[in-house]
Amino acid sequence: MKFLKFKGFNYIDGGICAAKGFLANGIHCGIARKALSLVGENSQQSDSTDETPKKKDLALIYSKENCNTAAVYTTNKVKGAPIFVTKEHIKDGMARAVIVNSVNANTCNADGIDKAQKMCELTAKHLNINVDDVIVASTGVIGQVLPIEPIEKGMEELVKGLSDKGNKAAIEAIMTTDTMEKEIAVEFQLGDKKCVIGGMLKGSGMIHPNMATTLTFITTDVKIKTEYLQMALDDVIKATLNRVSVDGDTSTNDMVSVMASGLAGNDEIRGEDESFLQFKNALYIVLMNLGKMMARDGEGATKLIECICTGANCEKTAEIVAKSVITSSLFKAAMFGEDANWGRILCAIGYADAEFDINEVDVSISSDAGKIDVCKDGAGLDFSEDEAKKILMEEEIRIIISIGNGEDEAIAWGCDLTYDYVRINGDYRS
Amino acid sequence: MKFLKFKGFNYIDGGICAAKGFLANGIHCGIARKALSLVGENSQQSDSTDETPKKKDLALIYSKENCNTAAVYTTNKVKGAPIFVTKEHIKDGMARAVIVNSVNANTCNADGIDKAQKMCELTAKHLNINVDDVIVASTGVIGQVLPIEPIEKGMEELVKGLSDKGNKAAIEAIMTTDTMEKEIAVEFQLGDKKCVIGGMLKGSGMIHPNMATTLTFITTDVKIKTEYLQMALDDVIKATLNRVSVDGDTSTNDMVSVMASGLAGNDEIRGEDESFLQFKNALYIVLMNLGKMMARDGEGATKLIECICTGANCEKTAEIVAKSVITSSLFKAAMFGEDANWGRILCAIGYADAEFDINEVDVSISSDAGKIDVCKDGAGLDFSEDEAKKILMEEEIRIIISIGNGEDEAIAWGCDLTYDYVRINGDYRS
Repeated sequence: MKFLKFKGFNYIDGGICAAKGFLANGIHCGIARKALSLVGENSQQSDSTDETPKKKDLALIYSKENCNTAAVYTTNKVKGAPIFVTKEHIKDGMARAVIVNSVNANTCNADGIDKAQKMCELTAKHLNINVDDVIVASTGVIGQVLPIEPIEKGMEELVKGLSDKGNKAAIEAIMTTDTMEKEIAVEFQLGDKKCVIGGMLKGSGMIHPNMATTLTFITTDVKIKTEYLQMALDDVIKATLNRVSVDGDTSTNDMVSVMASGLAGNDEIRGEDESFLQFKNALYIVLMNLGKMMARDGEGATKLIECICTGANCEKTAEIVAKSVITSSLFKAAMFGEDANWGRILCAIGYADAEFDINEVDVSISSDAGKIDVCKDGAGLDFSEDEAKKILMEEEIRIIISIGNGEDEAIAWGCDLTYDYVRINGDYRS
Repeated sequence: MKFLKFKGFNYIDGGICAAKGFLANGIHCGIARKALSLVGENSQQSDSTDETPKKKDLALIYSKENCNTAAVYTTNKVKGAPIFVTKEHIKDGMARAVIVNSVNANTCNADGIDKAQKMCELTAKHLNINVDDVIVASTGVIGQVLPIEPIEKGMEELVKGLSDKGNKAAIEAIMTTDTMEKEIAVEFQLGDKKCVIGGMLKGSGMIHPNMATTLTFITTDVKIKTEYLQMALDDVIKATLNRVSVDGDTSTNDMVSVMASGLAGNDEIRGEDESFLQFKNALYIVLMNLGKMMARDGEGATKLIECICTGANCEKTAEIVAKSVITSSLFKAAMFGEDANWGRILCAIGYADAEFDINEVDVSISSDAGKIDVCKDGAGLDFSEDEAKKILMEEEIRIIISIGNGEDEAIAWGCDLTYDYVRINGDYRS
C-alpha cells in the first residue's frame, strides 16, 4: 500500500517503538492451544505432535515514563471484559503499559473481569508499576473462558524481552486473521522539537467501527494534556477508523488507546493552538493509514476500495453516502469480479439515509490505470468496458462521487467481498 | 420449504391465477440478447449460434374485472422508471393488468419513463383496456437502455397465450438469479363465501426491502375498498417482506401490487371489521410465505435462517434485534459453515440500535434436528458441539432470542452467506 505524502510529515520505521520512551515485546505463551481444546471436544491437538511454529499470542507495550493517556471504545452493548477494566484504570488519564492477548476475546464470560484484572496485576508486578496504570485488551473467540495460567507463566519472558525493536513481535502477537502487519510512524516538528506518533493495529474481520475500532495502540513522545489528547483522538477517529468497514459488524472488543510520554520536550499542548492542530494532523495521518491498511487486509480482500463523496452540504451526508457504497455487499462482490457495475454504486447511494438530489449525482471510477466517468446527473454514460476492466484490475480502486454543489466531503474505506471472506468465516471459529 | 399451517386457511395451487378472474402468461421476447449486446462490447452472441432454450423475459397478468388496487414501492432515492409510471396509473386505486419484463431494470436511463409508458400503451392496446389501468415493472441490469422492439413484437403472442394456468409461465418470465419459483395461494372464508389470495414474487439478490420489496404481484377475488386494501398491505408488508434481508441492499425497483377483482362475492370490506382482519391474516400468510421463499432462495443461499426475538418492550425493538442478527455477514458465514458461533449472534444483538439490557439476553438455536441453549443472561452456556452441528446441518435454522420480560416479539428472515453469493455477484452483471 502506498502512503500519501503530507508536507512536513515524514514516515519513519519503528511503529509503536518509534516515539521516545516506548518498548515492546510479543511472545507465544500458549493461549491458543488451551482455548482450542475447550472448543473442539474432538480436538486431538497436543504439544508433542504439533510441530508448526507457535503463533505469538501475548503482547506488551511499556513506557519508561508515566503517560497522559486517552482511549475510545466499542459502542457495542456487548463489551469485552477488558474494556471495563481498562476504562477504570485510565480514568485518571494516565497509563504506563498495555497488555494484550489474542486467540480469546475474554468476552461474555462470567469470570471475564477477574481475568482481565489478573492480567493487569501480573503485568504490574513484573514491571514494578501500579496496576491502575495498565491497559488490557483481548481479541479472539467470544464466550470461552480465558485460561490465565499461560499468561502467568509467560509474563517473565515477555517483560525480559522488552526492547525498542519489539514492535514487530508485539504486532505478531495481537494478530488473528490479519495477513499483514499494520504499523506506521510519523515524524513532525512542534516548535524546534522533533516529535513522533507511532501506532499498530489489528483487525481484519468484524470490522465496522463505531466510535472505536479493533485493537489500535498509539504511542507518542509529544507532551500534551490528557484532556487535549482525548479531544484529538475523538475528532480524528471520526474521520479515520470510523470510516472503515470490512463486513458491517461492530466488534465487542474494539479499542484505541493513545499514550503520550512527553519525552519530545515540546511545550506542553494545553489548548487548541497551532501545535494542537499539528498534533491532530499527525494523528490523522497515522490513523488514516492504519485504517486503510485494515481495509486492504479485510478478511479475504484482494482490493482496497476508497470512496470519496464530494459536493455535500455537510460532512455527515458525505460520510453516510461514502459508507453506504463501501458497505454494499453487491458492490463489493462486483469489485471482486472487476465488473464496472455502476448501477450497484448508484443503488447504494440511493438507499443511503441522507438528503440530496439523486439527479445531481456524478460517479467516476479510478485507479493507477486511469479514470472513467460512468454516471452523470444520475444517468449512465457510455464508457469502454475494456478500459473499465483495466482500471478495476488494480489493487487500489477509487470511487469518486459528487452529490451536488456543496463544499463538504468525506472519504470511506472498504474492500471487496470474496470467496475467501466466506471461507475464513465459514470454516473457522474466529 | 414447509408452509406453516393456520386454522381456517388452506394452501391451494394456482398462484396468481388461483383467485377468480385472473389470467397470466409469460414469453421470451428477446430483451436478454438485446441488452447483453449493449453491455458486452466483445459479446459474440447471435441468434444462429445460440441453441440454449430462451429464458422467458416478459410477463402479463390480466384481470377480467377492473380491480381495486394497492401498491407499495421501494424507498431507494434511485427509483426505476416503471415505479413513476405505475404510481401515476394507479392513483385512482384501479388496475386491470400488470406488464413486467426481466433482464433490464429500465432504471437510470434518460428515456426510462417514455419506455415504461410505451410498455403500458402496447399492453392496453392489445388488451383493449385503458392505459391508466396498466401496472408496469422491470427488473434486471440498471443503467442500460431498454429496447422496446422485442416487447412490441412479442405483445401479440403474450396476450394470445393468456390463461388461468399461466401463473408458471409468468413467474419464469420475471425471474433473474432466482433458482426457484416463488408462488403461493391461500383459500379462506368471508361469511359464506370462499375467497382466495394468490401471489408470486421474484427476488434473490439486492434484497433488503424497506417499505416495499422486489417484484411481488398479489391477486385476490375478495371485494374490498381500495383504501382498506392499501391499509392491509401497508400493515402486512411491515411484518413480512420488510423483515427479509439477503444482502442489505435495498433495490431501486421494488414493488408489491395487490389487485382485488371482487369476484368472490363477499360483502365488500369497507371498514376495519372482522372480515378486514380475516383478509389481513390471509394476506399475511401469503406475503410471509413468499418472503420466506425469497430468503431461502437468496443468492447462493443453502439455508433459510429465521430469527425470532421475544421479550421485547415494543415490536420495533424486537424487529431491530432480529434484523441485526440476520444481516450480520459474520453470522451468515458461520451458518454456511454450520458453526454454532453464538458469539457472533451476541455481537450482532449488541450493536443493534435499540434499548434493552444485554445481561438479560438468552439465545437458543433450533431446527428439525433439535434445540440447544447457547447463551443465558448474556453469558455462554456449555453445550455439545456435536449436537449443535447436527442442528445446523438442516436447511431451516431458527435462532430464538429473548431480550427481557416484555410481551412483544418479531420474526426476521435471512439466509447464509456462501461462496455462490460471491460467484453470482462477482462474475455476472445482474
